[in-house]
Amino acid sequence: MKNTFGNSLTLTLFGESHGPAIGAVLDGLPGGVPVDPDIIASLLAKRRPSSAIDTGRREADEFQIVSGVFEGKTTGTPLCILIPNEDKHSADYQSLYGKARPSHADYAAFCKYHGFEDYRGGGHFSGRITAALVAAGGILIPMLEGLGITLGTHIKSCAGVVDRDFEDIQKDIDALNAGDFPVLDNQRIAEMTAEILRAKSELDSVGGVAETAVLGMPAGVGEPWFDSVEGMLSHALFSLGGVKGVEFGSGFSMADSRGSLCNDAFRMQKDKIVSETNHNGGINGGITNGMPLVFRCAVKPTPSIARMQNTVDFLKKENVTLEIMGRHDPAIVRRICPVIRSVTALVLCDLLCTRYGTDIFLKGRDAL
Amino acid sequence: MKNTFGNSLTLTLFGESHGPAIGAVLDGLPGGVPVDPDIIASLLAKRRPSSAIDTGRREADEFQIVSGVFEGKTTGTPLCILIPNEDKHSADYQSLYGKARPSHADYAAFCKYHGFEDYRGGGHFSGRITAALVAAGGILIPMLEGLGITLGTHIKSCAGVVDRDFEDIQKDIDALNAGDFPVLDNQRIAEMTAEILRAKSELDSVGGVAETAVLGMPAGVGEPWFDSVEGMLSHALFSLGGVKGVEFGSGFSMADSRGSLCNDAFRMQKDKIVSETNHNGGINGGITNGMPLVFRCAVKPTPSIARMQNTVDFLKKENVTLEIMGRHDPAIVRRICPVIRSVTALVLCDLLCTRYGTDIFLKGRDAL
Amino acid sequence: MKNTFGNSLTLTLFGESHGPAIGAVLDGLPGGVPVDPDIIASLLAKRRPSSAIDTGRREADEFQIVSGVFEGKTTGTPLCILIPNEDKHSADYQSLYGKARPSHADYAAFCKYHGFEDYRGGGHFSGRITAALVAAGGILIPMLEGLGITLGTHIKSCAGVVDRDFEDIQKDIDALNAGDFPVLDNQRIAEMTAEILRAKSELDSVGGVAETAVLGMPAGVGEPWFDSVEGMLSHALFSLGGVKGVEFGSGFSMADSRGSLCNDAFRMQKDKIVSETNHNGGINGGITNGMPLVFRCAVKPTPSIARMQNTVDFLKKENVTLEIMGRHDPAIVRRICPVIRSVTALVLCDLLCTRYGTDIFLKGRDAL
Amino acid sequence: MKNTFGNSLTLTLFGESHGPAIGAVLDGLPGGVPVDPDIIASLLAKRRPSSAIDTGRREADEFQIVSGVFEGKTTGTPLCILIPNEDKHSADYQSLYGKARPSHADYAAFCKYHGFEDYRGGGHFSGRITAALVAAGGILIPMLEGLGITLGTHIKSCAGVVDRDFEDIQKDIDALNAGDFPVLDNQRIAEMTAEILRAKSELDSVGGVAETAVLGMPAGVGEPWFDSVEGMLSHALFSLGGVKGVEFGSGFSMADSRGSLCNDAFRMQKDKIVSETNHNGGINGGITNGMPLVFRCAVKPTPSIARMQNTVDFLKKENVTLEIMGRHDPAIVRRICPVIRSVTALVLCDLLCTRYGTDIFLKGRDAL
Repeated sequence: MKNTFGNSLTLTLFGESHGPAIGAVLDGLPGGVPVDPDIIASLLAKRRPSSAIDTGRREADEFQIVSGVFEGKTTGTPLCILIPNEDKHSADYQSLYGKARPSHADYAAFCKYHGFEDYRGGGHFSGRITAALVAAGGILIPMLEGLGITLGTHIKSCAGVVDRDFEDIQKDIDALNAGDFPVLDNQRIAEMTAEILRAKSELDSVGGVAETAVLGMPAGVGEPWFDSVEGMLSHALFSLGGVKGVEFGSGFSMADSRGSLCNDAFRMQKDKIVSETNHNGGINGGITNGMPLVFRCAVKPTPSIARMQNTVDFLKKENVTLEIMGRHDPAIVRRICPVIRSVTALVLCDLLCTRYGTDIFLKGRDAL
Repeated sequence: MKNTFGNSLTLTLFGESHGPAIGAVLDGLPGGVPVDPDIIASLLAKRRPSSAIDTGRREADEFQIVSGVFEGKTTGTPLCILIPNEDKHSADYQSLYGKARPSHADYAAFCKYHGFEDYRGGGHFSGRITAALVAAGGILIPMLEGLGITLGTHIKSCAGVVDRDFEDIQKDIDALNAGDFPVLDNQRIAEMTAEILRAKSELDSVGGVAETAVLGMPAGVGEPWFDSVEGMLSHALFSLGGVKGVEFGSGFSMADSRGSLCNDAFRMQKDKIVSETNHNGGINGGITNGMPLVFRCAVKPTPSIARMQNTVDFLKKENVTLEIMGRHDPAIVRRICPVIRSVTALVLCDLLCTRYGTDIFLKGRDAL
Repeated sequence: MKNTFGNSLTLTLFGESHGPAIGAVLDGLPGGVPVDPDIIASLLAKRRPSSAIDTGRREADEFQIVSGVFEGKTTGTPLCILIPNEDKHSADYQSLYGKARPSHADYAAFCKYHGFEDYRGGGHFSGRITAALVAAGGILIPMLEGLGITLGTHIKSCAGVVDRDFEDIQKDIDALNAGDFPVLDNQRIAEMTAEILRAKSELDSVGGVAETAVLGMPAGVGEPWFDSVEGMLSHALFSLGGVKGVEFGSGFSMADSRGSLCNDAFRMQKDKIVSETNHNGGINGGITNGMPLVFRCAVKPTPSIARMQNTVDFLKKENVTLEIMGRHDPAIVRRICPVIRSVTALVLCDLLCTRYGTDIFLKGRDAL
Repeated sequence: MKNTFGNSLTLTLFGESHGPAIGAVLDGLPGGVPVDPDIIASLLAKRRPSSAIDTGRREADEFQIVSGVFEGKTTGTPLCILIPNEDKHSADYQSLYGKARPSHADYAAFCKYHGFEDYRGGGHFSGRITAALVAAGGILIPMLEGLGITLGTHIKSCAGVVDRDFEDIQKDIDALNAGDFPVLDNQRIAEMTAEILRAKSELDSVGGVAETAVLGMPAGVGEPWFDSVEGMLSHALFSLGGVKGVEFGSGFSMADSRGSLCNDAFRMQKDKIVSETNHNGGINGGITNGMPLVFRCAVKPTPSIARMQNTVDFLKKENVTLEIMGRHDPAIVRRICPVIRSVTALVLCDLLCTRYGTDIFLKGRDAL
């Protein structure tokens, strides 16, 4: 479905970096879900460039809900949220058109759209579009919380600095969502910042790994074969520009392990069935097993770097060199964390709707 | 869509391990595509347990095409392929029901289906079902080849033994598809076999990494944001039971790298635009860029091991121990390679249909 | 989605008239729904040619459930039902190929499938395929009944003979489903039969109107704009070969009426909100309003008639005459009634699943 | 998919009558299709209340394309078109809430959305929303015309006045699209107007039948079983509030006819295969046969009439009387014609994309 994701609760994404606005339509919401503009704004703020390690550009992210909300609550009909773009100086883009920025979508989009793509600032492929996902997250995350489901994303590693693992997951999630810089061990903030700034000073960029934990998902959610929890989450997560790898639970490290070491033994914890370890990241056979969901996304280094790079001019079909001007993020892994959290919320809300019906979000946790 | 995958060309999967048959329905095929039962059979043979490192069970994999083929060619209407299950001794499963095999779908399925799931041999969650995917691959892979698109999957690593990388990709793909044991360096066969058998003798199992390369995909294919090449491929790949991680191009290793090191510089190669490196695995912004597609799947160790394991009886809600009897694969990474290849073919055929229309497979490479 | 229908509960149809088998895959069923082969068989019997007014062909309609049922109940995984075709004498079809039977799919299918379609007996476009829909109905109709929702279809008119309207709907539905010839006024049976046989003796065929009533649908079901009750029902109903018109409530006659005459005034009936009339057929704004659903399908005369007809040979591109041999139904309106009832059940089950979640069919009417 | 329609080229609809804006997102368009704001505006003008027979309300229908168009052409990424609502006096709606307007969606929507629906002016169920469909038509209709496919909709009958049938279809379509009042026989304009005004003066409303013809569709388009031309068209057409019946070709009148009278005999017309009659409306077996598409929609009388009506207050659960104030259309059949035309264009564009791929609209008629 191209720019629409979800089976029961869907999100449709639209917009270009330098067009009048970007936005999203959420459909399949029940009527009666509270929509709090402050929560949306605070989530957008977490994605917005703000710290020393982000791009120097400033975005306002004013948003407008143009449908689907009435008297502060969802109506149950499509909710369209619009984020106007501010005036951009786009004139200079025209002269650059044709020079494919390496590891960007420029050339691939040209092949797909035959040169009709809006190339200014990456157009529809700009990270800018993720603001609409985060705005949607500002509606969906509280819906999950109303069912007792919470989630948080932290920078597991960046520029050689490694954050600690999730420990007390509920506490860790709460801390992440309260803080500005999404790491579990706050001592890592200075180290990461220093390393990122060092890369920046070397006209370079760094990648990182973002790790997400979800607490409170009931067992029995997921629609395998194809619409398994892993299938749906990865589909949505790989839609994010910089994500080049996704792994659940112990992921790639399980490939080097043995069954005796990474099978998760079930045990009774009073009346509740849990597993002693969680190498499978809370998912067996594509279905939640009641344990926390845990997964990681590999985020590649920002492809926009200030160095001179080799590339081609795909219009002229010749080799050229390219110097990308302007202010760019030396690392996007911090800013992608709220995006991943929002995308995760979308997938989980959709799977919950499929299983429990549209109105589950009005009913509270006891109905799960 | 639960057990249906694809937008333009869809596959619907059905069947249980111990039911009368498993199968798949392919819809959206054009009329006129040759269907060669021998190719299907030879692909099924590659998935079938046969070597020392596989389960001792023997499966016949007789298949029947019950619709959609007439006089050796697709009709354009739904193609249903059926693989009957042979008689299984299922009586003994009943006494085991309730004892959740660790890292299997048993408990999660029980939660989802309320105890009505067919639990015998893993039911719908058995790896057995992948035979239907491979059978479909026997139709889809030749369709791609008719467009000049070839693909191969090898065991990149297993039990500590590492295969070499793709080098001359076309030659490597051809060799893989001609051989029995999917590695690029045949010297690794004995080593892997030995290590797998060692794990087996220790009543244990191993995982591995399967790597796939696709040659010949035209630039400009993919439907981002959501139905990007990565999004669609990962969605389908994570539907496979043992897959716990997927990465494209340099994947997770890019997270530790720098933009200056892993940006893929475009260059003219005569008239053709290529990139000097391929860290992005042939995909920019979710769209093919004309370079080879490369991705890896992390496959966890087979959860069925012969050791006594701790678990719960979810019916009685008590801790128990479990000894899984029978013959199991100490490693599935070899047998999953043709499955991954088939699933990849499904995704690529679907994306090509979306872009070029249903009849592209009748037109040949010049029409791309 | 071509041969798949439904959003939450889907049916995928496959098969050709002269292939090995036809069938359907139902996906999205909950686990635990009883499946009674006798009910399926009795519904198939209602569709089967049996009376003087049907084709002289005899079909056995043996069916096999190859997946998705375990110990007499649905497992929750895809349910594939297969109906083998009996041996047909297909050799003589080849000589006829190219001569387009008027008002059949022959020529249109040739254009779509480029001559690769299975042309024998109409192939995938044969009314034969509706047997798979009826078999599915044998599972879905009892699911609705478990929620207190019943439905019946009668021949409203055929060959100039008009049946009475629904009166005591529950009683009428019960009588229809118990009887062999679906009319409300049994006195019409002889008249209709006589008129149909008269047409047959004149080497001709007749059409008719089939009317359906559904009792017990809760108010508030339907997903407008597009997946309104009318949109979904008509989509599925027009998939049936002979259906050329669908109208809800007073339908086309409302076009000639006035608002004051055909607005349905709401009234309290004790605690319940009802409408005094039901010109809207139980649907307002695409959503059920709690009144009975009522709609009619126009069924065209069977296009296969024994007279010499003008047509073209589309292979030779020349005018020819055609005499359709064999035994054909002079009217299909009787046999289409159980098909319409089954298709209606599919649509309503799907819409109920979307609203209430997969498990609603396990919960009983109080959960609506 | 609720408020999204289409498989290959999709439209997502959003907005409420009294919210900030209504709009639509078109996805799956190729890059490079010209978008002419004047065409959109002129189509919107045809839907806008303007004549004596329409509501006295005046709507501006200013629209804004917020994404997917660059330098006057589609980019190939989602095209969002927004139509702001003008300030409405909504305060008085609150006191009316609960009093279900007969034959409106009020009560059904209350049941579905639990009282959270935006009830002002019909909210999401207002005919107002069709403006977004017409705006989309302003993009889609020229795309069809670029392929040599034209379509027109006229009032076949209204208030007892009957327009003539299509004769020289191309000429008739051209005249319809050039004129203001969509009838084929201009002498009917005064008669219809008089009858409609008579109904209005009697505080009443009238319905009508709208008939559409499409010229130039290639043979072989349609995706039966389910996504047949009839299935897809009816699905979309029944999404329009007032439509209660849809019939193709001779429709319901075929139910009273005989095979010998309504089979369409094929004949060679020089090199082209045509049929002598067109009772099947250009569709056989759900697939176009190259003849003109013809279908009719029954439009019920506007439910808003100025008379006192019986109804219930669904909040208080009591019988009440209701007088609907304000200015309403005594007939919507004129204004629905451009809506039907736009919706038809959407369905046909989608089916063409499915068959020929995304880029067909850049290639011209020879590529069909």
